[in-house]
Amino acid sequence: MRIGLDAMGGDNAPEYPVKGAIQAVCEYGYDITLIGKKTEIEKQLKGLDYPEEKIAIVEASEVIEMNDPAALSVRKKRKSSIVIGAELLKEGVFDAFVSAGNTGAVVCAATLSLRLLPGVDRPGIAVIFPTLNKPCMVIDVGANIDPKPLHLLQYGIMGDAYSKHILNKEEPSIALLNIGEEDTKGTDFIKEAHIMLSESKLNFLGNIEPKDVYKGKADVVVCDGFMGNVFLKVTEGFADAASELLKRELKFSGWITKLGATLTLPAFRALKRKIDATEYGGAPLMGVEGSVIIAHGSSNAKAIKNAICAAADNVDHKVNVHVVEELQSY
Amino acid sequence: MRIGLDAMGGDNAPEYPVKGAIQAVCEYGYDITLIGKKTEIEKQLKGLDYPEEKIAIVEASEVIEMNDPAALSVRKKRKSSIVIGAELLKEGVFDAFVSAGNTGAVVCAATLSLRLLPGVDRPGIAVIFPTLNKPCMVIDVGANIDPKPLHLLQYGIMGDAYSKHILNKEEPSIALLNIGEEDTKGTDFIKEAHIMLSESKLNFLGNIEPKDVYKGKADVVVCDGFMGNVFLKVTEGFADAASELLKRELKFSGWITKLGATLTLPAFRALKRKIDATEYGGAPLMGVEGSVIIAHGSSNAKAIKNAICAAADNVDHKVNVHVVEELQSY
Repeated sequence: MRIGLDAMGGDNAPEYPVKGAIQAVCEYGYDITLIGKKTEIEKQLKGLDYPEEKIAIVEASEVIEMNDPAALSVRKKRKSSIVIGAELLKEGVFDAFVSAGNTGAVVCAATLSLRLLPGVDRPGIAVIFPTLNKPCMVIDVGANIDPKPLHLLQYGIMGDAYSKHILNKEEPSIALLNIGEEDTKGTDFIKEAHIMLSESKLNFLGNIEPKDVYKGKADVVVCDGFMGNVFLKVTEGFADAASELLKRELKFSGWITKLGATLTLPAFRALKRKIDATEYGGAPLMGVEGSVIIAHGSSNAKAIKNAICAAADNVDHKVNVHVVEELQSY
Repeated sequence: MRIGLDAMGGDNAPEYPVKGAIQAVCEYGYDITLIGKKTEIEKQLKGLDYPEEKIAIVEASEVIEMNDPAALSVRKKRKSSIVIGAELLKEGVFDAFVSAGNTGAVVCAATLSLRLLPGVDRPGIAVIFPTLNKPCMVIDVGANIDPKPLHLLQYGIMGDAYSKHILNKEEPSIALLNIGEEDTKGTDFIKEAHIMLSESKLNFLGNIEPKDVYKGKADVVVCDGFMGNVFLKVTEGFADAASELLKRELKFSGWITKLGATLTLPAFRALKRKIDATEYGGAPLMGVEGSVIIAHGSSNAKAIKNAICAAADNVDHKVNVHVVEELQSY
């Protein structure tokens, strides 16, 4: 398995990508190509213990920053790690490409270099969410912020294929994120998407409210990228805020509460693992010709390693072959 | 202070509305008119201890259910507690109207009966959110799910007036909910709203991401009602899911962790109070001629009492007078 990794992507690049790559090499034996500024990558590699034949470096002299405008920077920064990564994936130099860099730029570069799968009009970013019940795929969480109803149907079909073949669900249930369960709820856009999903062969449950997403009532939840991104960021933001508030409360508590908190720590850690994105690896970019995994911008080394594993999983399970089969059957 | 209360609204009506009304009467001395099915209300009142001259009942023989289509049911169920409540408020029988019933129907009935304030094209529901820093008003959270950019500007102006005159903030900061901070982010709708807000006299901070809403970086956050509703429901849903997950973790923990959890309880309770909607009372429906407060459908008696207090506060502070002044200065 050969994985290309954007060594310049994410808040602590190239340190965390390099460390995550080494973890993936040592634990799973993948061959990894680090793409980025060679001197900086070599500085990070120095002193680390790893099988050297497993790591290659490809020079990319430019960096697309997290806040660069996506389409423009992909056009202008042809020597960036994201653009070079997408192009080398297209050429078959590696089997999958992973980046924790500028999400919009990764979507744009992948779409331009790799093209879309037959039957797909827009790519979608899928996130596997932990729920009270079973993991749930939410698609799209930011690739396509102003989609047409047809794109949501395509997301449903892609999510169905992914759930069947990667998550091993027999007849995945698909739902449409909305502010109420009734068919009549939502904007005209949502209502149109609802009709298209209802008339498809999918196991469509209808509308789903956010609280029922967490309860695990559906295997796949489709939504526009703007909504999905808000869903993701509200979850992250609230989890951080709640844990900060709790810390403050504990600070002003007596020693009994503090002792209690210390004793409860193992349960907290287990909870954190469940809701922690780093455990779930990266988000597959569904709909492009090739395996592209988008990792969170704040990924640490472990999150990068998990994103690399998710990429390998995608390749192993031939996700795109199944997605194309599924799309053609519609 | 005379408050009209929809006794049939909410998941446990008329029990919780009646109990909440009695709490408000006993603690604050308000005069309350309960609107709903008289016999059911009287059954709930039986055995409760309260000053009888402070409670009046107005018969409303119909009930708009939580899932009834809003506009249609307001047109058809003219004898419902929501329609009668809005009409009695218009006639000046009481100073404010509170309902935990079907939100869409309350918005619709209030708009039809009371009309909109001069300078307002659409009403907006405002929620006061707890944050790590200071309370933050999010508007709109569901009255107007497909707004125009101009409506968001009007929400900003109304939020500004509310923050100044009710929350006593000197120069409230206004921000636009978006999936990134950069001016170039978001849909065309968001970009247009961004330009209008930038060109206004408001203290406009620009775009805000969900995580920064929780950090309390803005006094007022404006968004379309669909997005705002998702924001609200994701927060609620995630908080419930996280506490359920934690309970499960604790169940499978050893006795030391369980002891710890028991000792930590006071801190948890304090945290829950901070993020608990029932503490914050109801959400004002901004932009209509009259004080209307929408309480959460799952309100318990305490939440109803707090919504009644929020209504009284609105009247005391002459919110609408200030909102109109502010709108006219633009």
